[in-house]
Amino acid sequence: MAHEMNEAMQECIDRCQTCDSVCLETVAHCLALGGRHAEAGHIQTLLACGEICHTSARFMLLGSAFHARSCEICADVCDACADDCNRFPDDESMQRCADTCLRCAESCREMARSMSRT
Amino acid sequence: MAHEMNEAMQECIDRCQTCDSVCLETVAHCLALGGRHAEAGHIQTLLACGEICHTSARFMLLGSAFHARSCEICADVCDACADDCNRFPDDESMQRCADTCLRCAESCREMARSMSRT
Amino acid sequence: MAHEMNEAMQECIDRCQTCDSVCLETVAHCLALGGRHAEAGHIQTLLACGEICHTSARFMLLGSAFHARSCEICADVCDACADDCNRFPDDESMQRCADTCLRCAESCREMARSMSRT
Amino acid sequence: MAHEMNEAMQECIDRCQTCDSVCLETVAHCLALGGRHAEAGHIQTLLACGEICHTSARFMLLGSAFHARSCEICADVCDACADDCNRFPDDESMQRCADTCLRCAESCREMARSMSRT
Repeated sequence: MAHEMNEAMQECIDRCQTCDSVCLETVAHCLALGGRHAEAGHIQTLLACGEICHTSARFMLLGSAFHARSCEICADVCDACADDCNRFPDDESMQRCADTCLRCAESCREMARSMSRT
Repeated sequence: MAHEMNEAMQECIDRCQTCDSVCLETVAHCLALGGRHAEAGHIQTLLACGEICHTSARFMLLGSAFHARSCEICADVCDACADDCNRFPDDESMQRCADTCLRCAESCREMARSMSRT
Repeated sequence: MAHEMNEAMQECIDRCQTCDSVCLETVAHCLALGGRHAEAGHIQTLLACGEICHTSARFMLLGSAFHARSCEICADVCDACADDCNRFPDDESMQRCADTCLRCAESCREMARSMSRT
Repeated sequence: MAHEMNEAMQECIDRCQTCDSVCLETVAHCLALGGRHAEAGHIQTLLACGEICHTSARFMLLGSAFHARSCEICADVCDACADDCNRFPDDESMQRCADTCLRCAESCREMARSMSRT
């Protein structure tokens, strides 16, 4: 292997990728429903969340030393996205997106912390 | 859901994403080994393969009608990438990448075909 | 230089990148206006157009032999995106996006053709 | 326009995109030369730099409030990439990449600062 890839990092990569996909799927869902679901700020947060999740996964896969910094923002964007989705407690897709974001944020924070300890 | 997402498409998205990751991980592996592993053409194919896999996954997640076209190229790039990796039969990472590319190509071809039938 | 990069290709890369940006800016514009501007199909086409423009630019920058194939789809997605934007003749941002897409499509078709001649 | 896009931000977006392209072109250049040019760490930094530049541009284009955070990392990755390239003072492509990275870092820092003042 090109670089140390422990279990926690592998899990973080998986969660980032799942979050990227779920955010984009949720964009499609929200646009289809329209109205309050398709509010500009909400769609932008979902799109931004997918972007930074993808970048964080790529930083870890590449073995970049900057992955901890990227994971740190990623966690914050994921939290903001989960908050946004949680305004729709009765929408299953939105709830699934919120849960996915929170799991991703948790792993990303662990990555950011483990790095700052070294 | 915003758009029909059948099992075959869901599987294709998963395989595209796995292939994107494995290609990037293989780039890191090849660069670390250097020499014949890090040959320009090989790294470029791995990077291009990751790119088009990611785009194809996004087209499907967005529900774009162009996903069949994207999957068609994706299958061909994956095949080329698998051929490239298969020149290293004794390298486990390369063999894993070749297998992942072939599975992705298979699903992408199915997407391309199912679309051209409709 | 790593690979032959003639003027036509350099121009095509520039147009792909401009088109990627303008599409994303137009997404933000359309979401802010809402209603018919933020229709699911329109936003999805804009997002898909940005994706494939970015991928085509990267294929050319990497020197991938598959750039012609990617440019071929890119041209078609750009045309579809321009058609979509042209439904709003009184909206300046949409007109700018349509023009940018058409210029990108023109360059991408030239790339696709020049490759098939070799 | 969907969101306030002042001149400084527009310039930052342009620099991020140019930097993304130049980094990828430099990857192709380095891989073609091989040897010390294609060292794993150097290629990984170039690839990571392209990624975060692209993401920062997209955050600004989308109007995401997190663009300042993304620009902050982007500036640091760009600086690291310029340092790496500056180890090759006689290589024109590498010098061009270093200059592009430094200009991008400068704009990104301005974005990060202007945000933290608000």
